[in-house]
Amino acid sequence: MERSVAFWFEFASTYSYLSAMRISSAAKARGIAVIWRPFLLGPIFAAQGWDTSPFNLYPAKGRYMWRDMQRICAARGLPFCHPDPFPQNGLMAARLALAASEQDRIQAFAQSVYLAQFGDGADISAEPILLDCLHKAGLDANLLDRAQSPEIKSALRAQTEAASVAGIFGAPSFTSGTELFWGDDRLEQALDHAAARTI
Amino acid sequence: MERSVAFWFEFASTYSYLSAMRISSAAKARGIAVIWRPFLLGPIFAAQGWDTSPFNLYPAKGRYMWRDMQRICAARGLPFCHPDPFPQNGLMAARLALAASEQDRIQAFAQSVYLAQFGDGADISAEPILLDCLHKAGLDANLLDRAQSPEIKSALRAQTEAASVAGIFGAPSFTSGTELFWGDDRLEQALDHAAARTI
Repeated sequence: MERSVAFWFEFASTYSYLSAMRISSAAKARGIAVIWRPFLLGPIFAAQGWDTSPFNLYPAKGRYMWRDMQRICAARGLPFCHPDPFPQNGLMAARLALAASEQDRIQAFAQSVYLAQFGDGADISAEPILLDCLHKAGLDANLLDRAQSPEIKSALRAQTEAASVAGIFGAPSFTSGTELFWGDDRLEQALDHAAARTI
Repeated sequence: MERSVAFWFEFASTYSYLSAMRISSAAKARGIAVIWRPFLLGPIFAAQGWDTSPFNLYPAKGRYMWRDMQRICAARGLPFCHPDPFPQNGLMAARLALAASEQDRIQAFAQSVYLAQFGDGADISAEPILLDCLHKAGLDANLLDRAQSPEIKSALRAQTEAASVAGIFGAPSFTSGTELFWGDDRLEQALDHAAARTI
């Protein structure tokens, strides 16, 4: 049995983009497998009484986040732009990601969606954009049908429910056993925890 | 002129404790001076519509914070307990800190208050606790009078207003020139920014 960390991400989340672009190499360096778990923040924010991103609800926090992301992306050599609107609707992308995981291509697909959104400012709820992301990830266009299947829809609902049960309140989050780590800043801590676990 | 970073902290803030215990050595290693700027989060949270700490308002976030602090303090060899009530009333401690800064003893005083609160679980609004903190910082008990002077009261109000103007929405925060950095996780970035500034 391989040691692993679960990576909980939401496509509209800026800081999830940061982790999505680096988690695989960081995990590989520690001999850890990554379980990619897309979920929706919308229902979790709604349970906290929020109808949009806290970065929109709290303007000072929002202004800071955009500048923080700019600085971090510049330091890491990642492209970054402010997509409009923000947050984007990541529902279809999340369903497609689950469909892509059935073909072991979730990482390639997720990275391609993040780069389209935060690199090019593309609308990730638009079908032509998603088709292009599927193509870049080496996936077939018929995944759009699979993504709309009852199995995938219900799997995404179950995953979002599981996130809530795990105590997740934001993204990205990482779980190693029963330990929860929140934010790209905690990626190393999560991986170190997973690497030290007795299994 | 020496390069410097401003360290904005609130006594009731758990993550401010982390930075207060390490900022001086981290800054010294980079040849940076630290300007200790106590302020009150209460008015800033109130402007966001919050009447207490977001860690109380959002239970999942609160549960996570206590566990996160536990893990970090254990890794850094810092004592840590959950003070009751939380958040504490840090008004008098903040006024005393400004009075202590007039005698160049703000760091010693602030660290002693944080250790009393998060190490021993003491109530930092209680006069005997504050007297003990003054004593440990090599300061005289008559600073309690100075802390209640109109000058110090108005200096703390002005500092809180300055924090808001600087875009600060949480603690700890750090400013280097016009750049704002939020959270103990950004301490190194703030110091590196200050070290690289042309002055």
